[in-house]
Amino acid sequence: MQRDGTSFVQGASRGIGLELVHQLLGRQPEGHVIATCRRPADAADLQALTARHPERLRLIALDVREEKTIAAAAEAVARQTKELQLILNVAGILHGPDFGPEKKLEQVQPEPLRHAFEVNAFGPLLVAKHFHGFLRHGQRSVFASLSARVGSISDNRLGGWYAYRGSKAAQNMFTKNISIELGRVAPHAIVVGLHPGTVDTDLSKPFQRNLPEKQLLAARESVAALLQVVDSLDREDSGKIFDFRGKEITP
Amino acid sequence: MQRDGTSFVQGASRGIGLELVHQLLGRQPEGHVIATCRRPADAADLQALTARHPERLRLIALDVREEKTIAAAAEAVARQTKELQLILNVAGILHGPDFGPEKKLEQVQPEPLRHAFEVNAFGPLLVAKHFHGFLRHGQRSVFASLSARVGSISDNRLGGWYAYRGSKAAQNMFTKNISIELGRVAPHAIVVGLHPGTVDTDLSKPFQRNLPEKQLLAARESVAALLQVVDSLDREDSGKIFDFRGKEITP
Repeated sequence: MQRDGTSFVQGASRGIGLELVHQLLGRQPEGHVIATCRRPADAADLQALTARHPERLRLIALDVREEKTIAAAAEAVARQTKELQLILNVAGILHGPDFGPEKKLEQVQPEPLRHAFEVNAFGPLLVAKHFHGFLRHGQRSVFASLSARVGSISDNRLGGWYAYRGSKAAQNMFTKNISIELGRVAPHAIVVGLHPGTVDTDLSKPFQRNLPEKQLLAARESVAALLQVVDSLDREDSGKIFDFRGKEITP
Repeated sequence: MQRDGTSFVQGASRGIGLELVHQLLGRQPEGHVIATCRRPADAADLQALTARHPERLRLIALDVREEKTIAAAAEAVARQTKELQLILNVAGILHGPDFGPEKKLEQVQPEPLRHAFEVNAFGPLLVAKHFHGFLRHGQRSVFASLSARVGSISDNRLGGWYAYRGSKAAQNMFTKNISIELGRVAPHAIVVGLHPGTVDTDLSKPFQRNLPEKQLLAARESVAALLQVVDSLDREDSGKIFDFRGKEITP
């Protein structure tokens, strides 16, 4: 990983996104990080990190469900830099205050379906729309979205989790599509999906009790592994999905 | 194909859906067909078919973007029969009056994205939610949704068509998921996606000029081939996607 350059982390207020910001600041002592979340004013952990790194960390408001905030964030970034080395789409939703992952068809509801697709699938795609210009430089760059093993159609043995699985499958298609388009206009950009493992965050909390022992990763471990994977990616990897150990996941 | 039984065709007012109704009535001389579309009163071709087969063809209003119309259609069907042998999800959208398939990221727009996903992906899923009870009988049945080769992530070489490709990939995940769930409660049901080829319908009209010669199928040819594939399906095929020649398409 290079020592300078600018990384962009979308969905950074907590969990994996927050830890990514943390580790990127540590690993790149001369690098800059731009972190986004829906309400920076409420993001206490990000605020504390910014106080420690006022020159190197910048917070910007961005809600992936509101395209105009993505466009505004791109304008704000453009006033700071023309080039990004790393774009990470982290925001994801599995359950909300009034819905959880569906165990069966009867639990499928249109509004949570729409919500999951807007965050998990349309979000990274709209970020690509507004931010791919920052990857059109002559150096290696990575555009990565947090995917999930359960978003693999061929690997699906258990069923259920309709909205989450479907939205991650759609995201994987978008990752492939974006890799093809950027392959033409930004040939040094590598576009991938990343499965972080099952990580001890708010997203996985309701499901941790069902896990085999030692399968739950601390955010720190997962992120360290994911950044190693990001470091190791070649142009030939573009369009693919990898787990945190660097193993490819088939669609 | 059995001579009697009841088939349900969702999205039957024109193109492939209309032709499916036509051929099912012909192939199953003692069979019944229930055909749905958004506005049966405006569906002149379906009305004409109903006039010819008043005892065997029934029209019901159903808009896949309005779940309550799906629930109401299920209630209407329940007053006629407890069992369906075939459910076909045909409604699909590639372009509308004010949007077309995206050639590049700049053309991606949230509202057409939502529209495509609601029709192409959420539609078949919500039909499964409200209609799977009709497949819980002891006989072979098929639940099929019109998929598309361009919905295959691994087969994607050209990129573009973000909303259409992404929504068909999500539909393929839902097909897999539904097959797993029905495998538990309706073990004689076979759940598949079907790629009809590029068929001479309104959906493909704007893109036909780019096709290699003879690659465009008449709806009549495609539907005859699709119904042969439906006839040939085994329980082991459930969860998979097939083209009109019966060849499996990987996700």
